[in-house]
Amino acid sequence: MLKKEINIDPERVTEKIITFIRNNINSFKRNGAIVGISGGLDSACVTALLTRAIEKNKILGLIMPERDSDDKTKGDAELVASTFNIPIKFIDLTPILESIGTYDVFPGGLLSNKKTASRVIKTGYRFLAKANNPFREGLLGSQKEWLRYSQAYYRIKHRMRMVYLYYYAEQLNYLVAGTSNKSEDMVGFFVKYGDGAADIMPIATLYKSQVRQLSEWLGVPKCIIKKPPSPDLLPGITDELALKISYEKLDLVLLGIEKGMVEREIARESGVNVKMIRYIKILVSLSEHMRNPAKICQTR
Amino acid sequence: MLKKEINIDPERVTEKIITFIRNNINSFKRNGAIVGISGGLDSACVTALLTRAIEKNKILGLIMPERDSDDKTKGDAELVASTFNIPIKFIDLTPILESIGTYDVFPGGLLSNKKTASRVIKTGYRFLAKANNPFREGLLGSQKEWLRYSQAYYRIKHRMRMVYLYYYAEQLNYLVAGTSNKSEDMVGFFVKYGDGAADIMPIATLYKSQVRQLSEWLGVPKCIIKKPPSPDLLPGITDELALKISYEKLDLVLLGIEKGMVEREIARESGVNVKMIRYIKILVSLSEHMRNPAKICQTR
Repeated sequence: MLKKEINIDPERVTEKIITFIRNNINSFKRNGAIVGISGGLDSACVTALLTRAIEKNKILGLIMPERDSDDKTKGDAELVASTFNIPIKFIDLTPILESIGTYDVFPGGLLSNKKTASRVIKTGYRFLAKANNPFREGLLGSQKEWLRYSQAYYRIKHRMRMVYLYYYAEQLNYLVAGTSNKSEDMVGFFVKYGDGAADIMPIATLYKSQVRQLSEWLGVPKCIIKKPPSPDLLPGITDELALKISYEKLDLVLLGIEKGMVEREIARESGVNVKMIRYIKILVSLSEHMRNPAKICQTR
Repeated sequence: MLKKEINIDPERVTEKIITFIRNNINSFKRNGAIVGISGGLDSACVTALLTRAIEKNKILGLIMPERDSDDKTKGDAELVASTFNIPIKFIDLTPILESIGTYDVFPGGLLSNKKTASRVIKTGYRFLAKANNPFREGLLGSQKEWLRYSQAYYRIKHRMRMVYLYYYAEQLNYLVAGTSNKSEDMVGFFVKYGDGAADIMPIATLYKSQVRQLSEWLGVPKCIIKKPPSPDLLPGITDELALKISYEKLDLVLLGIEKGMVEREIARESGVNVKMIRYIKILVSLSEHMRNPAKICQTR
């Protein structure tokens, strides 16, 4: 049931999103749209959708790698841009993050060899995750200094990207198209006022596996579809490592939760055990504040 | 009626806000709160409220002037911090904005003399505002290149401040306290994902004139209360110049609109003419998208 329901009709969904993009360009009175192209699946999907909704010369893709980005990031992002043939602009975030002092937390020598860094960080993360999952702990404040510094370290990268997206969007009178999907939105796997900030969210009601289905239909390059999803903020940290579950399974669980199914039923249909389902429910609950606007004091 | 209703009971309001701050520090599990101190009224008020809600050594004030800030900005912000005796950190945004290339739009020579720059910009703005108010036009996209570049130019400053506030908040496990008031919120006189972005908004349901009343009661220095409100983003541009009306009058109109009063009645009680009341209603309507979260495509 869940496995069947997770399937989308890509043509119908594409039609809806095209209308949505066009309507918003009109109602916001903008000349086009800007999107940050990370080399990952979500931004490739949004790029493809934009090219179907508006003229290609009214789209701008910003490619914003930095010191810790994967070696393949820039090339993958360029591949997306060339596949869909849209104008791009490169911004190397490294000098800005350097001048803010961000890299002082993890100095250059430590991360200069990406492969080694990736292995070391991955092993360290797995070790720490045995006692308490750092991602879960980070959803609300933490008393651990190393965790807090790591959060400040990676989150500022997405926020700087948002700053640049709006900086160019405003110069060009473009809309900022966000690339959030429903899976990461539900479990809080995004940065508040970072990648979670945009004018329009074309794929935010689609689970990651649905974004994958849609991307296949839209002609996103196979290598982009197949590569393991990663926030690309710290070498070695992939989505699956942080979330402790694959999107294929996570999405079935989230869909089951959305439909109000009982845990045992979700477990039976998704093949995920009840303990993990409860853990996912906790992520959804702890990340609620990230999906809500700022808390406003009612003074009356 | 309106003139009477705009009056608040500062003691009662303070009590509510204190409870609000404490409750949120608890529910977000944070160790304290951070606030950007601009030298203006709103941030002084929020600073004062924070000191009444939590220990002073659990507050951090960030003072973030940049090249175009008023000469008095730093001193006024320091005065606020010393009055309420909280720890502060200075960040000069100038080098960051320089490396982003922001200042290239209005190069240094042009704005090096603040007094001259202020006079020139003020005169230019007034001239332009005769045909079409730039602030109003900027609420939705604009086809005028100079206006778009000006917007990108000033908005990035508030967004960079937000980036720094979260950067330090995350390192310290603090909440970000926003300083938005209801007047600027209603007419869109803020920067989306800039000063409009925070974890908690203690004074967002108070009109500017109510923030002034509250600040007097809280002991905010007189010179801060009396100085003309300004976003301090471009020399010469004050709130009143951009909005074309004083807060004293604007707030009465906004309260009238909020209460659903007819235009003629608002005009009679506020002393503001109907044409201006209609103009304010347009600002409220055009800025709606700024108060709402990103538009989400409903794909089902």
